[in-house]
Amino acid sequence: MKFCSECAQPISQVIPEGDNRVRYVCLSCDTVHYQNPRIVAGTLPIFEDKVLLCKRAIEPRKGYWTLPAGFMENGETTEQGAIRETVEEANARVINLQLYTMIAVPHISQVHIFFQGELADLNFSCGIESLEVKLFEEKDIPWQELAFPTVSTTLRRYFNDRKNQLANSQTPLPTHVFDISIEDRLKL
Amino acid sequence: MKFCSECAQPISQVIPEGDNRVRYVCLSCDTVHYQNPRIVAGTLPIFEDKVLLCKRAIEPRKGYWTLPAGFMENGETTEQGAIRETVEEANARVINLQLYTMIAVPHISQVHIFFQGELADLNFSCGIESLEVKLFEEKDIPWQELAFPTVSTTLRRYFNDRKNQLANSQTPLPTHVFDISIEDRLKL
Repeated sequence: MKFCSECAQPISQVIPEGDNRVRYVCLSCDTVHYQNPRIVAGTLPIFEDKVLLCKRAIEPRKGYWTLPAGFMENGETTEQGAIRETVEEANARVINLQLYTMIAVPHISQVHIFFQGELADLNFSCGIESLEVKLFEEKDIPWQELAFPTVSTTLRRYFNDRKNQLANSQTPLPTHVFDISIEDRLKL
Repeated sequence: MKFCSECAQPISQVIPEGDNRVRYVCLSCDTVHYQNPRIVAGTLPIFEDKVLLCKRAIEPRKGYWTLPAGFMENGETTEQGAIRETVEEANARVINLQLYTMIAVPHISQVHIFFQGELADLNFSCGIESLEVKLFEEKDIPWQELAFPTVSTTLRRYFNDRKNQLANSQTPLPTHVFDISIEDRLKL
């Protein structure tokens, strides 16, 4: 940020009065331009013992596999954002959504929210941002070709939880709330 | 937004190529200025059968009672944001945090996230944004003087869940994920 979006004057980086952080501030019109974390909303689409993944047609991580997800838009709910992204990337409809993972990724100022849900039908296909859309059993997941650490960890937790769920005759899946630090990211 | 924060030229509202929404776009330097929902993170601080509320010293809703909460900052996790706001508004330390409510408020493009947690000690006091900080039993909650619908509904669900929890000998509190529409807001 170099100029004030309200008055076009050069921006300064200062701590506003009564605040304790450096902000982008316009000293000409006194506007403080706050910057805040963004939400990535997506789904873990489930069909029988398989999950739906999309091969990315765009950067970042073009050619790698991901769960359908993207930046939440103004005016929508987290669930609407997750459903919209699933349609946009995979032309897929997911129903009975339940929050599954909420993962803070502080080094990039994002929060990733994945809802698990049932794939309503098998009429899915590539959206404009996908090269390929496919159902995977656990044994076929391309673990080394997953696009993002939040996708890997959501999938690992899901297959683990499902084993516990089957062993304990259908208790609901838990919700996982955790963080991924930059160090964790290098390990995943 | 009137001017481009990168090059100071006037901004246009157009649908960028490959997109499906009107965005703030600089036709001079081709920067798209995305706007996304913001996260409000806070806590439901619990001590015995009481919860901690803060009387707001600032607008909006000055003089009304709230749970400690505020905008999540870049570089922090949701839990760190919730803990920081609880210190800033009430000088209170909350431990053993668990996600309790995640509430989308689409008409103001916000997502409110409250963690329930135990108050670590009784050394709380007013932060600069609070006129008064106080523990309330359910019967004393100032329901008509609560600041925000997400606070009212989080408190109502908590006291209801706690009754169920006591009746069923200490099952953990559930996590609630839901939305508040502008119509709901008028009813609360």
